[in-house]
Amino acid sequence: MTDKVAGINSITEALHGRRKVHKIFVQEGRPNKKVEELVNYAQKKGIFVQYVEKSLLDRMYSAGNHQGIIAQISSFEYSEPGEILEKAFLNKQAPFILILDGLEDPQNFGSIIRTAEAAGVHGIIIPRHNSVEITAAVARASAGAVEHILIAQETNLVNTIRNLKKEGLWIIGADMQGDADYFTADIPSPTALIIGGEGRGIRRLVRENCDLLVKIPMWGRMESLNASVAAALLIYEVVRQRNLPAGK
Amino acid sequence: MTDKVAGINSITEALHGRRKVHKIFVQEGRPNKKVEELVNYAQKKGIFVQYVEKSLLDRMYSAGNHQGIIAQISSFEYSEPGEILEKAFLNKQAPFILILDGLEDPQNFGSIIRTAEAAGVHGIIIPRHNSVEITAAVARASAGAVEHILIAQETNLVNTIRNLKKEGLWIIGADMQGDADYFTADIPSPTALIIGGEGRGIRRLVRENCDLLVKIPMWGRMESLNASVAAALLIYEVVRQRNLPAGK
Repeated sequence: MTDKVAGINSITEALHGRRKVHKIFVQEGRPNKKVEELVNYAQKKGIFVQYVEKSLLDRMYSAGNHQGIIAQISSFEYSEPGEILEKAFLNKQAPFILILDGLEDPQNFGSIIRTAEAAGVHGIIIPRHNSVEITAAVARASAGAVEHILIAQETNLVNTIRNLKKEGLWIIGADMQGDADYFTADIPSPTALIIGGEGRGIRRLVRENCDLLVKIPMWGRMESLNASVAAALLIYEVVRQRNLPAGK
Repeated sequence: MTDKVAGINSITEALHGRRKVHKIFVQEGRPNKKVEELVNYAQKKGIFVQYVEKSLLDRMYSAGNHQGIIAQISSFEYSEPGEILEKAFLNKQAPFILILDGLEDPQNFGSIIRTAEAAGVHGIIIPRHNSVEITAAVARASAGAVEHILIAQETNLVNTIRNLKKEGLWIIGADMQGDADYFTADIPSPTALIIGGEGRGIRRLVRENCDLLVKIPMWGRMESLNASVAAALLIYEVVRQRNLPAGK
């Protein structure tokens, strides 16, 4: 099974990522310099490049602007939570896992993947049902970060959380009714951070299995932040606390 | 001069904001419960409501899904930097101003406005040229927060910054070559925080007028964060440091 990814950044990251790039389609005519460099690099790696009409590219990719270049790559392979933990242990780091409980917007998912990858999160867990999954639009919104992060799909998040607890992880949930402001709470390590879906937040059963609920304080008229902004604040707070001079 | 805003959230915020709502257009047929409540509320405030065909709404508003409701409201009125400072003084707070140096994407601008409003930023300053400005798409992406925040448009940001320095503000710039990680730097108060445009960052002359440059550390393969995510991290870091038990 193969996926399509499009655009210069996404394909650059795919060429450096874990997935196999089978073939690249490039728009006939004058590709710009960046596309040309990318094609040269791909050809050096032995990847077959085919020049086609723009109309064919348009038909192949409908998730946005393809920038005249589309790659056919092996399907995204989901990982297991165990592999995520293993990655942390191999890096000699305390695990930091992000759990997205019912996120729905591909743009938000892509943005969160990009932030998580930049912050050194070891992997992301999403539920198998009623959730975003990895699509071309998500890959694009992640600016290619999806090629460099482990993502697991789990049928029963509550079970997954119980298993993570057995592995010693602390389960931290983001909730508007949280016990403490996220930046004054001591966030224990190793950490699984749970962010809920847009508008709905974390589901009740999942929330009841959290060790600590933190909230993002707000001082204006707005009642919530964008989901990808909220996730970023919490992800980087975990990182900040891990990098405190005393705590490290 | 009037603007159009569309959608339930944006119009709700407009009805509670500073702008005058002149008229509301609603799609003929069965409006949903939320639209109905909004119409009732508007009519109680004496605002004229007109029912029209969907095709007319589609023609009136092209910046996204209008959700069957469009309001004609007085144009967004830009403020002066002095008004932003005054707002802080009236609230007995140390001023916190956000400066966006050449942001280009309306989605990012809207998201940043939403975050800034939630975090209690007193106002935003943008350059008059080569920058986003307030449009229907920005208002929509801000989830209506644009109705509750002061925004100034300045011709010469370097002059503006020098004036803010005279008022005692510290100028903090976000820059990948920053002197310190944003969460370990002591960010002095009162504060003007400068975020650069997507990809380009802060312009040289503006950067040279900063008192402190901070960077967001990254541990993955990604070389940058989404502009609205980067802005959110820095905005909330200013807020966090202001709310430290010792610092307050």
